[in-house]
Amino acid sequence: MKNIVLASTSTLYGEAYLAYLAPVIRELFGNKPEVIFIPYARPGGISHDDYTARVSTAFADFGVPVRGLHTFPDPQQALREGHAFFTGGGNTFLLVKQLHELHLMDVLKQEVEKGKPYLGTSAGSNIGGINMQTTNDMPIVYPSSFRTMGLVPFNLNPHYLDPIPSLPHMGETRETRIFEFHTQQNTPVIGLREGSWIRVKGDVITLEGTQPARIFEQGKMPYELEAGTVMTTISQVHL
Amino acid sequence: MKNIVLASTSTLYGEAYLAYLAPVIRELFGNKPEVIFIPYARPGGISHDDYTARVSTAFADFGVPVRGLHTFPDPQQALREGHAFFTGGGNTFLLVKQLHELHLMDVLKQEVEKGKPYLGTSAGSNIGGINMQTTNDMPIVYPSSFRTMGLVPFNLNPHYLDPIPSLPHMGETRETRIFEFHTQQNTPVIGLREGSWIRVKGDVITLEGTQPARIFEQGKMPYELEAGTVMTTISQVHL
Repeated sequence: MKNIVLASTSTLYGEAYLAYLAPVIRELFGNKPEVIFIPYARPGGISHDDYTARVSTAFADFGVPVRGLHTFPDPQQALREGHAFFTGGGNTFLLVKQLHELHLMDVLKQEVEKGKPYLGTSAGSNIGGINMQTTNDMPIVYPSSFRTMGLVPFNLNPHYLDPIPSLPHMGETRETRIFEFHTQQNTPVIGLREGSWIRVKGDVITLEGTQPARIFEQGKMPYELEAGTVMTTISQVHL
Repeated sequence: MKNIVLASTSTLYGEAYLAYLAPVIRELFGNKPEVIFIPYARPGGISHDDYTARVSTAFADFGVPVRGLHTFPDPQQALREGHAFFTGGGNTFLLVKQLHELHLMDVLKQEVEKGKPYLGTSAGSNIGGINMQTTNDMPIVYPSSFRTMGLVPFNLNPHYLDPIPSLPHMGETRETRIFEFHTQQNTPVIGLREGSWIRVKGDVITLEGTQPARIFEQGKMPYELEAGTVMTTISQVHL
């Protein structure tokens, strides 16, 4: 049974790293002997070791040991033998390039679909969608493909931001960017505001957390989805 | 002699399309029989025809006829025989994919380096840099390469936005994103604020317009460059 959390962000404004996700982390990982951390997104260019140390410190509160995937001699085997996975945020292009280069994207997908718990935040949530083509990140490296795991039947836009009417700036809003995405493909997009996450238990997908999400479907007006709503398929929710 | 303008944006807040660039457009294109417009970036998914019509209307004030590159049976030949070029904003991934697919990137570069006037705004300015890897746009399509024309020895970040201290949002700032870019390559990046443009006349590159630019070089603190400064090479400016 799938057991997945895809969160908009790791950190709420003014709070400690992962603090608001503590109940989720306990539920997902509380009884696991070890969590494998996937550090490839490297926020701010942090090293794999330093990023893993940061996560280990945060997870110490939960009594769950963490090991960085980069420390295993055979990362494919590490995923196959691992018990639970957490992919942190950073740059989605960097994360996806590395996962494809090391042939880990499909292995991770298989293991998570078997029921091993998975937590993603930000870039780590993007890779739970169909593809990474609704990321906010800069294309600082060129991945061999934009395809991601497709653990859910839609894409995510983490850190979703509503247009700021007072901002005298002519660049595209997030909503415009997602509309442009829908001129190219029909994958639904969940604009996931900070404080919210997607919870997958088996076939049931729920929006959780404190914020409504903004749902973008090709050819429809975007609409709000309240936290707590079951969203097994987006179009069912919409009807 | 190179004769190029790379502008942060097409439109200033509260103004008409291209209005603030009127003197620049007159200088670049005033004596040309026709300007070829490259509409491939399709802002908001607008069609090539509609986008070209919008530009034609704006250019009517200058008495310069405009023709869309998409209307030529052989766009490579059109660039070779054309007199002057304008590439409008929109989605940089879409623009770059199309230019590579149609084998136009190198032809356009050659013609502009011969001295044919070129104006870019936003995505159209991004392609004047070394590569498109400091765009703000969403990767809504997968280009065959991120390489662009390299008309200037740096990359641009159009619509450059300073961090907004009051925004309780944990996503990366523009500055953090560019810092992450510099963990991967050493191409300097010009954070070009709306209202400013890069002017290239032969070997002389100048920052023009109303705003200072923010300059990012690998391994250095970002710094401000005043409008009017000659920036033949960024590192000369810095010394």
